[in-house]
Amino acid sequence: MADKNQIIDLANRIYNLDEKVYEATGSNLGRIYHGDKNKCINDLVELISSEANSSILRSELALISNMARTIKNNPVLHKKIMKEYGSIFDEAMAIQESIEGGDIINPEIAELNMSNLENRFGKDDNLIICIGRSYGCAGTDIGFKLADKLRISYYDVSIVNEILQRNEEHEETDRALFQTKVKRTPAQWWRDFKKYHGLSRADVEFFNTSRKLVELAKQESFVIMGRYAENILTRNHIPHISIFITAPRKLRIQRTYQISKEKLTYKQAAKYVMKEDRAHLRRYAFYTGKKWGEADNYDMTINSASYGIDGSVDLIMRIVAKNRAHEG
Amino acid sequence: MADKNQIIDLANRIYNLDEKVYEATGSNLGRIYHGDKNKCINDLVELISSEANSSILRSELALISNMARTIKNNPVLHKKIMKEYGSIFDEAMAIQESIEGGDIINPEIAELNMSNLENRFGKDDNLIICIGRSYGCAGTDIGFKLADKLRISYYDVSIVNEILQRNEEHEETDRALFQTKVKRTPAQWWRDFKKYHGLSRADVEFFNTSRKLVELAKQESFVIMGRYAENILTRNHIPHISIFITAPRKLRIQRTYQISKEKLTYKQAAKYVMKEDRAHLRRYAFYTGKKWGEADNYDMTINSASYGIDGSVDLIMRIVAKNRAHEG
Repeated sequence: MADKNQIIDLANRIYNLDEKVYEATGSNLGRIYHGDKNKCINDLVELISSEANSSILRSELALISNMARTIKNNPVLHKKIMKEYGSIFDEAMAIQESIEGGDIINPEIAELNMSNLENRFGKDDNLIICIGRSYGCAGTDIGFKLADKLRISYYDVSIVNEILQRNEEHEETDRALFQTKVKRTPAQWWRDFKKYHGLSRADVEFFNTSRKLVELAKQESFVIMGRYAENILTRNHIPHISIFITAPRKLRIQRTYQISKEKLTYKQAAKYVMKEDRAHLRRYAFYTGKKWGEADNYDMTINSASYGIDGSVDLIMRIVAKNRAHEG
Repeated sequence: MADKNQIIDLANRIYNLDEKVYEATGSNLGRIYHGDKNKCINDLVELISSEANSSILRSELALISNMARTIKNNPVLHKKIMKEYGSIFDEAMAIQESIEGGDIINPEIAELNMSNLENRFGKDDNLIICIGRSYGCAGTDIGFKLADKLRISYYDVSIVNEILQRNEEHEETDRALFQTKVKRTPAQWWRDFKKYHGLSRADVEFFNTSRKLVELAKQESFVIMGRYAENILTRNHIPHISIFITAPRKLRIQRTYQISKEKLTYKQAAKYVMKEDRAHLRRYAFYTGKKWGEADNYDMTINSASYGIDGSVDLIMRIVAKNRAHEG
């Protein structure tokens, strides 16, 4: 906690800065602090020491600095004033933080968020990017191009299932399980039922995928599409970045319609996209207990309509690139 | 559209690459294409030319390249294979794009999204960052620090209102209107009613804010908090970046409780955060017709619990910084 003298000194410096800025700009917006100087400084001292009104002090500081930035005709004075402002700003923030406390960061989440970890991960650690996406937003294209640009592996549902099928530790039954279109005889069904304790195919797929994902994450860097990967990795304490990609529904329907090349009518495309959205919501809630696509379940959410496919790839590269240099 | 020969050639190259990768790795996952070579290539030709199954081709290519990346003991071969893969990848993508068509980008939105505009904006254009945020996520702190780091102005509700109040073109009545706590006499109320065609105070504030924002956007770069700014600027065709910041509700409640220093009980903090969320939703829907906080209304959404205050500032700086260098 700052002592009284420090606060009084700061109040004086803020008052003087305001005066200097006013003189330099002669702005029609006038000064922040006018009237009796002593009263102004007393008010400021109270404001700085107050637990409740930190946002008022910040607004006042912001007003002074906004104004100071308009000083264009005297670069030397401008620089001097901005320097004094910067020093006041830092001190005020430090005092307020000592009063207020409290960043929003969740250490547990942040620990798993790779783009937040400056020096924590060595060169040998794997970069894992989990991408969720809504139907028709080109999320798959973005994920695929991203993996290619980063020169890391790309996994989606068909690749993960392919790997699970090929995996020698998997038995015949598993293989059949993953060919979701294959009908099982009653005998096969009963065998599967006993083997998987009555779990549904979807559940078995979920558990197998979870196990495989955790295994892969220890071996290599990759982009993984869907598969509740961010949830699985978080539960297994494996660092990753989670991104959700979406776009306004109207555009997603349009794109679905275009890509279908008149195999779907516009109305059918709309129906399909909405059905997919509902199914995603339902499945995600079932396996994670969370709301699919809701911003606070991911590190970041991107509107692909704002950036396009290449723009989105580029954006994610910028987010990821800072801490990491990847080799092919 | 690619001609038949080009597609056959590409199919052969993909088949050969798969073979080469298999020989180099001897992976237990085996080859993608096995059995009769001619049949494989015919299947591939069909896959490449098919409108419907582009995702299958991509999955197969991804499997080959994932595997190729595991070649570690022969860097020369690895490099050669990855080069061939890159060339195949580009050609396959070009063919598929000519068949499929359709990026997701919305030219209208993208035109207004500054971080997507590589060379379009000159040095003199203003950088405008609109930040929406949920209560308790530290969004205000992030916006404020961001403006300071970028050395651009910071506007929030109190500053915008302050400016509107100070503006000399505003008359007495406007000033009174913005002191929302001030009670008006029936005579004042009637005068305001006539002047503003019966609009509510909130509506007058909205229209005045809109006008002021558009004016400011022509003059300078800034960070603007809330105020439906992304919506106002989009409607006025003014380039900007729109970001929504949020965090899991539980953390926002915790932070609100902590900051209140026991002036609120945890239960009261929870109630307050939920009340604020509801009010935000309601107001945003009223003035914009859109759903507050929904990912597709913004260019990007950030979970501040993943990054913390400084991490979020840093992240936004990375997104913005590429195209722009700002002076104080």
